[in-house]
Amino acid sequence: MTSREIDAATIAFAHRLADTAGAVIRPYFRQRIDVADKKPVVAGKTVFDPVTAADRDAEEAIRALIERERPNDGILGEEFGEKKSASGRRWVLDPVDGTRSFIAGRHEWGSLIALEEDGRAVLGIIDQPVLGERFLGVNGECRFRARERDELAVRVRECSRLEDAILCATHPDAFYGPGERDAFRRVQKCVRMTRWGGDCYIFGAMALGFVDLIVETAFHRWDVAALIPVIEGAGGIITNWQGGDCSEGGQTLAAGDRRIHAAALKALAG
Amino acid sequence: MTSREIDAATIAFAHRLADTAGAVIRPYFRQRIDVADKKPVVAGKTVFDPVTAADRDAEEAIRALIERERPNDGILGEEFGEKKSASGRRWVLDPVDGTRSFIAGRHEWGSLIALEEDGRAVLGIIDQPVLGERFLGVNGECRFRARERDELAVRVRECSRLEDAILCATHPDAFYGPGERDAFRRVQKCVRMTRWGGDCYIFGAMALGFVDLIVETAFHRWDVAALIPVIEGAGGIITNWQGGDCSEGGQTLAAGDRRIHAAALKALAG
Repeated sequence: MTSREIDAATIAFAHRLADTAGAVIRPYFRQRIDVADKKPVVAGKTVFDPVTAADRDAEEAIRALIERERPNDGILGEEFGEKKSASGRRWVLDPVDGTRSFIAGRHEWGSLIALEEDGRAVLGIIDQPVLGERFLGVNGECRFRARERDELAVRVRECSRLEDAILCATHPDAFYGPGERDAFRRVQKCVRMTRWGGDCYIFGAMALGFVDLIVETAFHRWDVAALIPVIEGAGGIITNWQGGDCSEGGQTLAAGDRRIHAAALKALAG
Repeated sequence: MTSREIDAATIAFAHRLADTAGAVIRPYFRQRIDVADKKPVVAGKTVFDPVTAADRDAEEAIRALIERERPNDGILGEEFGEKKSASGRRWVLDPVDGTRSFIAGRHEWGSLIALEEDGRAVLGIIDQPVLGERFLGVNGECRFRARERDELAVRVRECSRLEDAILCATHPDAFYGPGERDAFRRVQKCVRMTRWGGDCYIFGAMALGFVDLIVETAFHRWDVAALIPVIEGAGGIITNWQGGDCSEGGQTLAAGDRRIHAAALKALAG
């Protein structure tokens, strides 16, 4: 939970960053665009990791806005690295989280914008600019906007038992670390149903109260920073697989209800 | 391909069926609704197969419209079974294809409405009533409507090599039949990228030219009937895993480009 209130001007600025990203990204969606491959080596193998002009142009546009209006704030973005902070605040950006889904013409991707104070995420936005949906986590609550609807506070739902839970995760191949696949399967075999795909969007579905559990791994800091205030603001819990801080990325476990979070931690530990 | 033209009145009637389904389903989306479990036994195990009032009420509404306006046509629907045809035509219905995604508050589900003539699908609609997106395959073309945009004809894209292909499939656990998982993996290891989830919606993404290959199994007739005219109308190919007719359901292979369809058939055969 956040230590002190984030002021209205900062929240409005965060919305402007999301608006800016969306305006850049929307014209690229479902167009014939070049897809470059960053070709990272993962577990000894080169994997396909796409990046497009949507990712790069949106991050440049957001960074320019931060440089101009909040020049002392730091920036960490997926495509253009880090700018050190002189203010104790840092913006953590992934304008197209779910680039694979984006290039497949599907909707389950989003722009992630987080604000960290002294290394802790205190504001997070998950924005889906094509659907016109935005989740904002800040000051201990989660606000949801959908096109043509009033903004409202949203909450996770109760779910006390793993056997009643809907589990989501993005891709089975992400669980390539030692023991990760088995750990995931121990959780999966306890739940009611598993749905794959979704990237950041499934965390929005959790904040709305329709997904109970999310198990992910291989997250970067920019993948998770925005999710923390959203999930915590909606009344959920998000940690690493040991129950500790997940700000660094890596293994991530989110739940709407603390009881199944505890049960999932046990199952992951084996 | 269809043998003769489907008339404008029948196409307009199919649109009305989709409109009717959407009007029934939309109010249920992202609401707290009861989820019943049909508990089918699959591969010797009872599995979770959810059904909601959205599925049932929408199918009832469509069936009532067909009974009233096209009383001689047959009906086959997921929830309420078969009514024999006296006209040689039959409507094949799955108003919420992707109920698991629907109850998870996600968008990748749709209403499937097909018209069969003498057992062959000659018209198919994939409708996403919350996104306001509709794919209609009929008379050798695929038309796409999105909210606030003009309807337009859409086409699959060229993709000559599996190593450039985006592969989609709904859920890894669907490949439970003998050898199916290995067959799927032989295809998967050849492609550029795999994305999971999506149900019927990924076939729409293929018709738009952003998904190259889809491998599915355990389809029912109502899961596949509407997809055939959509994929064929968009210039793609959809068959079973042996390259034959897939109208009955079961194993299904769709591709935007015949070259990777042929390559995928080989990989599936091992």
